[in-house]
Amino acid sequence: MRKILLLSAAVAILASPALAAPSAKERAALEAAVKADHAGAVKRLQDWIALPTIAAENLNAAEGADYMRRLALDAGFGQAKVIPTSGVPGVLATLDAGAKDCVGVYFMYDVKQYDPAEWSSPPLAAKIVDRPGEGKAIVGRGAVNQKGPETAFLAALRAFKAAGRKLPLNIVLVAEGEEEIASPNFPQVIAHPEVKPALEKCVGVFIPFNAQNRDGSAGINLGAKGVVELQLIVGGETSDRYPKADTHSSSHARIENPAWRLVKALDTLVKDDGHTPAVDGWFENVKPLTPRQKELVAQLAAQGSETDAKKGSGGVGRWINDEDYRTSIERLISQPTINIQGLVSGYMGPGGKTVLPGRAEAKIDLRLVPDMTKDEVVAKLKAHLAKHGFSDVKVNISGGYGPNETDENAALIRAQKKVLDKWKVPYAVNPRLAGSWPGVVFTGPPLRLPAGQVGIGRGGGAHAPDEWYLIESSDPKVAGMDELTMFYIDYLYALADEAKRSKR
Amino acid sequence: MRKILLLSAAVAILASPALAAPSAKERAALEAAVKADHAGAVKRLQDWIALPTIAAENLNAAEGADYMRRLALDAGFGQAKVIPTSGVPGVLATLDAGAKDCVGVYFMYDVKQYDPAEWSSPPLAAKIVDRPGEGKAIVGRGAVNQKGPETAFLAALRAFKAAGRKLPLNIVLVAEGEEEIASPNFPQVIAHPEVKPALEKCVGVFIPFNAQNRDGSAGINLGAKGVVELQLIVGGETSDRYPKADTHSSSHARIENPAWRLVKALDTLVKDDGHTPAVDGWFENVKPLTPRQKELVAQLAAQGSETDAKKGSGGVGRWINDEDYRTSIERLISQPTINIQGLVSGYMGPGGKTVLPGRAEAKIDLRLVPDMTKDEVVAKLKAHLAKHGFSDVKVNISGGYGPNETDENAALIRAQKKVLDKWKVPYAVNPRLAGSWPGVVFTGPPLRLPAGQVGIGRGGGAHAPDEWYLIESSDPKVAGMDELTMFYIDYLYALADEAKRSKR
Repeated sequence: MRKILLLSAAVAILASPALAAPSAKERAALEAAVKADHAGAVKRLQDWIALPTIAAENLNAAEGADYMRRLALDAGFGQAKVIPTSGVPGVLATLDAGAKDCVGVYFMYDVKQYDPAEWSSPPLAAKIVDRPGEGKAIVGRGAVNQKGPETAFLAALRAFKAAGRKLPLNIVLVAEGEEEIASPNFPQVIAHPEVKPALEKCVGVFIPFNAQNRDGSAGINLGAKGVVELQLIVGGETSDRYPKADTHSSSHARIENPAWRLVKALDTLVKDDGHTPAVDGWFENVKPLTPRQKELVAQLAAQGSETDAKKGSGGVGRWINDEDYRTSIERLISQPTINIQGLVSGYMGPGGKTVLPGRAEAKIDLRLVPDMTKDEVVAKLKAHLAKHGFSDVKVNISGGYGPNETDENAALIRAQKKVLDKWKVPYAVNPRLAGSWPGVVFTGPPLRLPAGQVGIGRGGGAHAPDEWYLIESSDPKVAGMDELTMFYIDYLYALADEAKRSKR
Repeated sequence: MRKILLLSAAVAILASPALAAPSAKERAALEAAVKADHAGAVKRLQDWIALPTIAAENLNAAEGADYMRRLALDAGFGQAKVIPTSGVPGVLATLDAGAKDCVGVYFMYDVKQYDPAEWSSPPLAAKIVDRPGEGKAIVGRGAVNQKGPETAFLAALRAFKAAGRKLPLNIVLVAEGEEEIASPNFPQVIAHPEVKPALEKCVGVFIPFNAQNRDGSAGINLGAKGVVELQLIVGGETSDRYPKADTHSSSHARIENPAWRLVKALDTLVKDDGHTPAVDGWFENVKPLTPRQKELVAQLAAQGSETDAKKGSGGVGRWINDEDYRTSIERLISQPTINIQGLVSGYMGPGGKTVLPGRAEAKIDLRLVPDMTKDEVVAKLKAHLAKHGFSDVKVNISGGYGPNETDENAALIRAQKKVLDKWKVPYAVNPRLAGSWPGVVFTGPPLRLPAGQVGIGRGGGAHAPDEWYLIESSDPKVAGMDELTMFYIDYLYALADEAKRSKR
């Protein structure tokens, strides 16, 4: 059944007047190359998962960057180099196909932290398992976020090489290893004297992505929220009012407790409803949703399954304010948030322990919507704490970036719609991804390029145990890894075509 | 020099008109027995440390109780039995010396949790180390809290046996294995049909204790605060408004965060000063300090070292409100507290992780002063949460008991003063220990007995890494283990004497 899908898509593309489109024979050769490389691609993904780069844990920074560089060269990039930053290095790779236009591709080669005890198979073993009703999946940290779809994209480039075909577009690959800590140094990669000029020429930048739902429907994102990650810290390291280490809890009668101080500071950050940011001016630059964005939200609500959405959100039973599904999506994409990721203080094991903590920390993330900026919210947060008498609370900004938006009429999006239509993949257009990616480095100054996620296929468990990516789908409506690779091949042709019409 | 101290103490005791006091020859025989048993006592303490009972971790409950029972029999108790409870068992042991009066002795055989990574030697290895300027100490979990002084007390009983001397008092030993989780089931031990009648006959109950400061001064406690340990919990387990497990933090735009709910609830519990309990009626039954108690506080302040007190409290630099030392002690013994022991929610590793937590927990302890009771404060806390709209916050009471007080004129205290005077150990009388022990089960109904800590010697790091107990003191003013054992021998004689005059 999958073969029929691929064939019909191919036929449909052939029927279009795309200038760059390959002949049926040429596309069949590419498809044969993809299939021949299936086991190789799976193996490359497994090997890559075995080398996790985790910026928060200072794990495999140099190793991960060099691995990324070699993956690019191996896939056909003419040159690839590691770009040093103040933190984990980036990678620049360029593939000059002699084409008129070029596209930027953004990779993250880092992955989220994991606790092997929570996994059903070792997170670096990339075990292939059967997902009943879905097919064969790889379970491993980074499988879907983002090494799976990235491996599929590289496989597309390899197929061109194997089939002896020229790419319809030149490719500029920029990769970073700090996406999971909110890309604190990625602007340095962009500003690099070889990176900026290379990207400036491009029609836009995309990140390989798995966007398919269980029912086969997919999505196009017209932007994403920004995120700022920070820690609020009180304790012996911030004031001599607190012990330098946990001490006996009876001392609290005469010694201040940093956990109480943190609670008092945190309490001021959101309203009593437990979610609305209460920082002065927080909503000042929040653009309301446009009628078109609201229309798209309604389509999303009609297309999606509320039950699946709740299940996929930790099995929650109700949305904020018991709102309906459509309203919850509107809130999801339109509301800036101040989220507590974690609380860390004193004794954290089972039961209790009579200590007065020497330190209390709240891990926070802020999600931003247009036109908020990272600098703006950091300044407002600090001013808020000062105004409420909490200047003593240490604010450690560990990373972040603003939101991004891309016009629905950009070539990057037009080509995406075109290929999804050809593949007969139903899709909704998401006006804004609630999650974040550092697209603002592309969409914002100085590049001001369209940017977004591109891809079909399916996976889950990003940032959670048992992260998985579907490599062989048993459902003809859902793409596995080879189909995603073919999707990228078609997308590059479609994008070359759209770029000729109008770039941005 | 230590020998001189012991000798002069012995001479002083001989000079007193105590009816039960041993002759110089008899006391010398006891002292010889103690010295002959030194290595044995150290070994018994090391072996005991190697078997930690930790109620919070369900560790060695039955093993620890049986070990305690065997330790008692081995020390000369005529009978010893394990007393089952709903939790960790207690132990009752009786030693009938044919004396007129009896004294109750309270042991805890459990210890606090520990993290070996934080220790300079393995916490169960009971390594003997040199503490510069202090002498030889055993480093291990439970060394001072409370196995060290308890081992010394048992060594005193063994010395009577070894020297062929009758004890001047009958002994009733009651032990529990849940002191460190606030003795949730100890009242069951007391209510046991064999325990209550045995204790009722006693002059009072004491727990072996190391009360000496670095300068050799010691303390007598006339009571202790009570403590209640509890956890406040919000999350998927308490409401379907929250995820059942950590989920992606972008979801917070439409899903409530249990950590915020917990922060809002916590915020109501103390005033904005970060320490004064804000629960309705919290101070209703708080008895103000009496003029005598204030006088004793002034003596404590004059005797103690503020620098040492700050160093011993996690190296804090300032007391609450920048108060002076005397005021800080007054606050320490007189103020009830609501303490955050720990905060646990979401991601707690290094840096950040973009999750919305599925659960948030605050570990709390309440310290109570006379005449507060456990039932009273638990009811008030729950009423407070309900009144402020936080009935959804789960309150898990994991243990606790009220405060205890003993009259300065009880035989138990009079005998203590007498032996300290004879030993020429300067001491202050502490009107109330800021820490807690379940003495209220003895001082409260139905027993209403005097109760307190008895002992000299020195140790530190209770509830902290590198807990230690001084077994051989290099400072003649400070007692090691043998001196503490002799102290208990003298104390039993003095107590028998005082009991004859007036019991309570």
